[in-house]
Amino acid sequence: MNAAIDPVDLAGRLIACPSVTPADGGAMAVLAEALAAIGFAVHRFAAGEAPDGPIENLFAVRGAGAPHLAFAGHTDVVPPGEGWASDPFTATVADGVLYGRGAVDMKGAIAAFVAAAAEVRDHPGTVSLIITGDEEGPATYGTRSLIAWMAANGQHPDLCLVGEPTSQSRLGDMMKIGRRGSVNMWIDVPGTQGHVAYPHLADNPAPRLVRALARLSALELDRGNEWFQPSNLEITDIAIGNPAANVIPARATARINIRFNDMHSGEALVDQVRAILLEEAPRATLTARISGESFLTAPGALSGMLGEAITEVTGLVAELSTTGGTSDARFLSRICPVVEFGLPNATMHKLDEAVAVDDLRQLARIYAALLRRVLPG
Amino acid sequence: MNAAIDPVDLAGRLIACPSVTPADGGAMAVLAEALAAIGFAVHRFAAGEAPDGPIENLFAVRGAGAPHLAFAGHTDVVPPGEGWASDPFTATVADGVLYGRGAVDMKGAIAAFVAAAAEVRDHPGTVSLIITGDEEGPATYGTRSLIAWMAANGQHPDLCLVGEPTSQSRLGDMMKIGRRGSVNMWIDVPGTQGHVAYPHLADNPAPRLVRALARLSALELDRGNEWFQPSNLEITDIAIGNPAANVIPARATARINIRFNDMHSGEALVDQVRAILLEEAPRATLTARISGESFLTAPGALSGMLGEAITEVTGLVAELSTTGGTSDARFLSRICPVVEFGLPNATMHKLDEAVAVDDLRQLARIYAALLRRVLPG
Ligand SMILES: [Zn+2]
Ligand SMILES: [Zn+2]
Repeated sequence: MNAAIDPVDLAGRLIACPSVTPADGGAMAVLAEALAAIGFAVHRFAAGEAPDGPIENLFAVRGAGAPHLAFAGHTDVVPPGEGWASDPFTATVADGVLYGRGAVDMKGAIAAFVAAAAEVRDHPGTVSLIITGDEEGPATYGTRSLIAWMAANGQHPDLCLVGEPTSQSRLGDMMKIGRRGSVNMWIDVPGTQGHVAYPHLADNPAPRLVRALARLSALELDRGNEWFQPSNLEITDIAIGNPAANVIPARATARINIRFNDMHSGEALVDQVRAILLEEAPRATLTARISGESFLTAPGALSGMLGEAITEVTGLVAELSTTGGTSDARFLSRICPVVEFGLPNATMHKLDEAVAVDDLRQLARIYAALLRRVLPG
Repeated sequence: MNAAIDPVDLAGRLIACPSVTPADGGAMAVLAEALAAIGFAVHRFAAGEAPDGPIENLFAVRGAGAPHLAFAGHTDVVPPGEGWASDPFTATVADGVLYGRGAVDMKGAIAAFVAAAAEVRDHPGTVSLIITGDEEGPATYGTRSLIAWMAANGQHPDLCLVGEPTSQSRLGDMMKIGRRGSVNMWIDVPGTQGHVAYPHLADNPAPRLVRALARLSALELDRGNEWFQPSNLEITDIAIGNPAANVIPARATARINIRFNDMHSGEALVDQVRAILLEEAPRATLTARISGESFLTAPGALSGMLGEAITEVTGLVAELSTTGGTSDARFLSRICPVVEFGLPNATMHKLDEAVAVDDLRQLARIYAALLRRVLPG
């Protein structure tokens, strides 16, 4: 039998790589070496150009044919910020807790992928890792580039698990079977500048903007459904930028964000906003950027097997959720059913990000249990 | 008979003094010398401290007892800006037009005051000049200080003419018998910052602000009356200042201005805005600054005599108006009836500010004709 891989050790070696997006910091090399040692063919490529790139990407595969289970994740991390109790890029274990940037999001989960694949080596079909260095950034040259690379190289996963930190208060209490979509829109209402004492010679754009925004923020987009909470619109910025108290401004702008469930498409929501603008501010311009459409992996074989694996290791029954922000699952859901499951997320993106050593080892066992179920030997 | 004073010459000597608020540039000394030469007792004092002061003020008086007619104005000017065809602080006459900063607003009118007082020297009662160096600035240490000085020194004008440039297309086509008041208000709506994906953990202040602003901008404050246009509210700024598209902001702020007629007081309008905020954004804070209350000098003796003087010199019947911005008449109206009349205002505060030499000489004759009517010899 081959030697086991301790996910705490591997997570520590990944944490030691300062991989703040878009930097790699040596993380992919550490991962590639560990995967090669347990029989994976490792393919690495860089994509994109400055300032959002180049981005290090890695696709590793072991075995052949169906079924093909892919583990997906990212080695990049958000900036550590000031004020850590220990160096954020030095893995530090104290009282059974591993500290370091990326401990839960998601170098810990990547280490657990590798430990699981080291534990379960004798399986039919294919197991792969889809790992990018650009999930926390613009995500332009990351998972999308990996999906294109896989298509070009004949790699077609049947099922995918993304290792984002989905657990809430205890490891195993929640998995994600979908995510809401997200769209940002920029509204620009033109007017004609003038003096407040002569309003008939000016045309203030602000009343049109606030009327439009009042209607938009009062919209009931839907009431949610069995698997999704209601879609939600937030005004995230308004700007006029007029320092003079006696001047009617020439422009008024705003930015909104909509997080939407599977009852909408991003484009239909843009049309809905445009229709309101047409009534309240006809000359407004609307610029939209759809960060991701919503997706749902309807409860079924994949979430069922994952739920069994979680219960086997932790004794918990995981809640099936679609809450929270977006993740690279929005891209992977286009090619196969996707679920997301990982560590408790209380410290993600925060100072002193940390994971209990026991949780990390249990996570590796859950991933191994899933691997055995999807690819029964 | 004493020598006449040419208002074009005196205006030119005042223009040569670079008196951008709060600087005096020697203007008060030029004026004091001219007034002393025609029998005025000249009182000068400085008021205030940096940065809004010190401000040069001048009160000059000739004669004694009632009636007391005061001419009021300012020697300070707004900055010239770049791009003049001739030096803004060198009076330049070309084709019968006098160019220079302050030519119409209002060194020209001050020169016309002096020329009129030089022409009409044998009068009963009292004639005075109330001249400040802080009308274009914050107006904190200007006319208000002069009013306090006059009260302390037993000077009580019965009628006042402010020499602001009120004429529109032709000298004599408009006088002002009142002005609207002005109040600025700053609205600050607090909330709780958070991530757009977790709106239940945040509290977006923007919907409350836009609802309040939509109601405020839809208010019909009044429909105007015989002498005033309708009061008007303008949103002059909105600011959130949130660069992150995925963040619900912690604060949303706005600034409004109301120009109001004599059917309102500034304080009552602040209360009206506060009542709407209380309904739409209960935790909002409201900061108000009343720049001036409205005033009306009901058509009567003063506007009647001024109208006759204008018709005598120009043949025109001046329109009685209350339009436009605020002026120091808002302070002087507290002590006696006030009208405003002066040069055509097309170039005030602009590049190549200019007055027709004929208009300036006619203005001096109109002021002299008013003097003869108010203080008949
Ligand atoms: Zn992540
Ligand atoms: Zn002026």
